[in-house]
Formats: sequence, structure tokens, C-alpha cells
Amino acid sequence: MLEKGYSNAGIQEILNRADVPKGSFYYYFDSKQEFALAIVNHFDEAYTAKVLKCLREQSRQFSPLQRLRAFCQCNKNSLEASQCRNGCLIGNLSQEMADQSEILRRRLEEIMGHWRDLFAACIEEGQQIGEIKNNYRPDEIAELFLSGWEGAVMRAKSTKTLEPIDVFMRVMFEQVLKAQPPQSFDAVAPQTVSQQV
Amino acid sequence: MLEKGYSNAGIQEILNRADVPKGSFYYYFDSKQEFALAIVNHFDEAYTAKVLKCLREQSRQFSPLQRLRAFCQCNKNSLEASQCRNGCLIGNLSQEMADQSEILRRRLEEIMGHWRDLFAACIEEGQQIGEIKNNYRPDEIAELFLSGWEGAVMRAKSTKTLEPIDVFMRVMFEQVLKAQPPQSFDAVAPQTVSQQV
Repeated sequence: MLEKGYSNAGIQEILNRADVPKGSFYYYFDSKQEFALAIVNHFDEAYTAKVLKCLREQSRQFSPLQRLRAFCQCNKNSLEASQCRNGCLIGNLSQEMADQSEILRRRLEEIMGHWRDLFAACIEEGQQIGEIKNNYRPDEIAELFLSGWEGAVMRAKSTKTLEPIDVFMRVMFEQVLKAQPPQSFDAVAPQTVSQQV
Repeated sequence: MLEKGYSNAGIQEILNRADVPKGSFYYYFDSKQEFALAIVNHFDEAYTAKVLKCLREQSRQFSPLQRLRAFCQCNKNSLEASQCRNGCLIGNLSQEMADQSEILRRRLEEIMGHWRDLFAACIEEGQQIGEIKNNYRPDEIAELFLSGWEGAVMRAKSTKTLEPIDVFMRVMFEQVLKAQPPQSFDAVAPQTVSQQV
């Protein structure tokens, strides 16, 4: 389903690959939608653990910005390893199914909303210690971080290059997230300022 | 196909809705992929005209930043009118088909690449007149603008709200694109600087 999408992944094809008889499938799942929900939940469990590992577990060792960057780098490595194929299951299914199944849309949105909250908590922490700019609310920056990331992954799939990911990371971290260190008065000549801002 | 995606839009269903016999379909198209390419080309023609209208035609009346904003506003209005359904055909099919059909992927990437070039030309113009920051190359900012936009549209479909679009527009224009006017030396106290950057 990650590879082919919801509609294009036939139940029979999946059963053949898994070498499972059809009766067993319908013993466990009422419909393809039920099956997709189970896949999504399974993916969510594994992936959210990965997000948590990047954003929370390493909080003693790394700063909020470093942890957000670790999230990007870790996913960039996966994309590179798969030659920019597949992308993000939750993003793919959201794009494909948001208007086809309200049940799937709600569950997918719940999962993405949870990721956004995890980003927001990390961003808020960064704002509190002055590492991340505080001109927007944490949940706003988190929404942009999430949607920008998903868009960059889609473009990476589409161009089959990592360039969209690299541009996202560069501009997002340098321009949107990172607070500038306070400067001494001497360093602030008007020309310098207009270059920085 | 915009509504349901490639795999989920059955040829028979399309023929029924259009009240066209199957023979006619195969007289014009060898396969569903051929048909999808024709749809994509048709969409491209209409949509690129819309992009050009926002970004180029109005260049005497409006500045580059205003024209980029007009592009967003015009598409935001369409999303609002459709209650955040459907989104962008090229984005949807890229997400769904990039790993399924190399022929479709290439064509979709060509179309998006063209949009990116149109954004880049507008951004370069803005950099030349000092309206847009020049700390990144126009094609880099254009890639981020495109992928960020596509991601925000996907999130709008998924959340069924325009919030992701609003956040994208606010942060993209205020933080990434808009150059700050040069300031007089008097106005630049250290506190002011650290708030702005």
C-alpha cells in the first residue's frame, strides 16, 4: 500500500504475496478500508516511535533545533536508501483518500495532528531557550514544518532527487526556525542589518 | 481523476458519466495511461495559463511579491469554493503515480518544473528590485515555494480547513520572501535587531 497506494493495491495481490488464503483475510477484516486502517495504525506505531526518538528521547544530548534536524536527516536517509521511492504512507494515503473515505481521512489527520503536536512541543522548547524564533506560535511553525516536509517528500518522489529535501532543510532551519544570536551594538551597521534580515 | 485519483477512476465509470461507448475510447486512447496523459496535458494548458496570468500578465500593475501572493490567493479561493476537496491534479497524480508509471512521472515533473521556473523568474525579478531577499538562488526559493504550497494543499485536503494555507502564506511571505527595508542607523538598537531577524 505504501508502494502502490490504496486503490492500486489489490487484496488478491496482497494475499498472493503474503501467501494467505482469502478466507483468512475476511476473518480478520470486514473490508479493504478496515485493512487499510490496521496498516495505518501499525505504521503509526512504528513511525511515531521514530519521531519520538528524534524529538524527545535525545533531549538531554541535543538541543531542540538539533533534534528537529535529526528528524529530517533520518527521513532523508530513508528516502535516499529507497532512491526517493514510496515517501510517507500517511502523506500518500491522505493525498489519495482524503476525499474518498471520511473514516480514513479522520484517522490519517489524527496521526498527522499528533506529529504536528510533537513538533510544536519541540519548537516551543526551542523558543523558550531562545534557540528558535518566537514570532509565530509553536503550532503554526509546526504546521508549516509538517506541510513543508510532506511537500518536499512529494517533490523528491516526483523529481527522484533529494534537492527538494535539501532546500527545505536549508531554508526552514536558517530562515524560519533559527533565532539569531543577539548582537553587540558595534556590529550593527545598517548595511549589515539589511543583509541579515 | 482529480476527484478519485488515477487507480480509483475506472474507465467504465468515466464512459458512463460521459455517455460515450467503450469503442470510441479505444479509438482515441491506447490505454488508461494515454488517457491520463491527455487529461494532464489539458489541465496543464488551463492551469499554466492561470499561473501565467497571476505571475506575468499583471506585471505592470503589481510587484513580484504581490503577484506571488495573487497566485496563492487565487488558488486558496478555489480550495475554499470546493470545501478543501480535490486539491491539485498534478500534485495528486505525482503523489500517487510517481513510482507506478515512469512516463506519467516524467510528464508530471516536467509540468511542475515549468511552474517552478515561472515562480523563479518572478522571484528573481523581486530580488533585482530589492523586494525579495537574495540570500538564496531564485530556483531554490521557487522549489521551496512550490513544495511548500503543494504540502499545504495536501494538509488542507486532509484537515478540511484552510489553516495550513494561511500559515504557509504568512510565514513564506513574511519570513522567507520579503526583504526588510534598509533601516536608518538610529533605529537599530540591539534589541530591535534580535527581534527582527
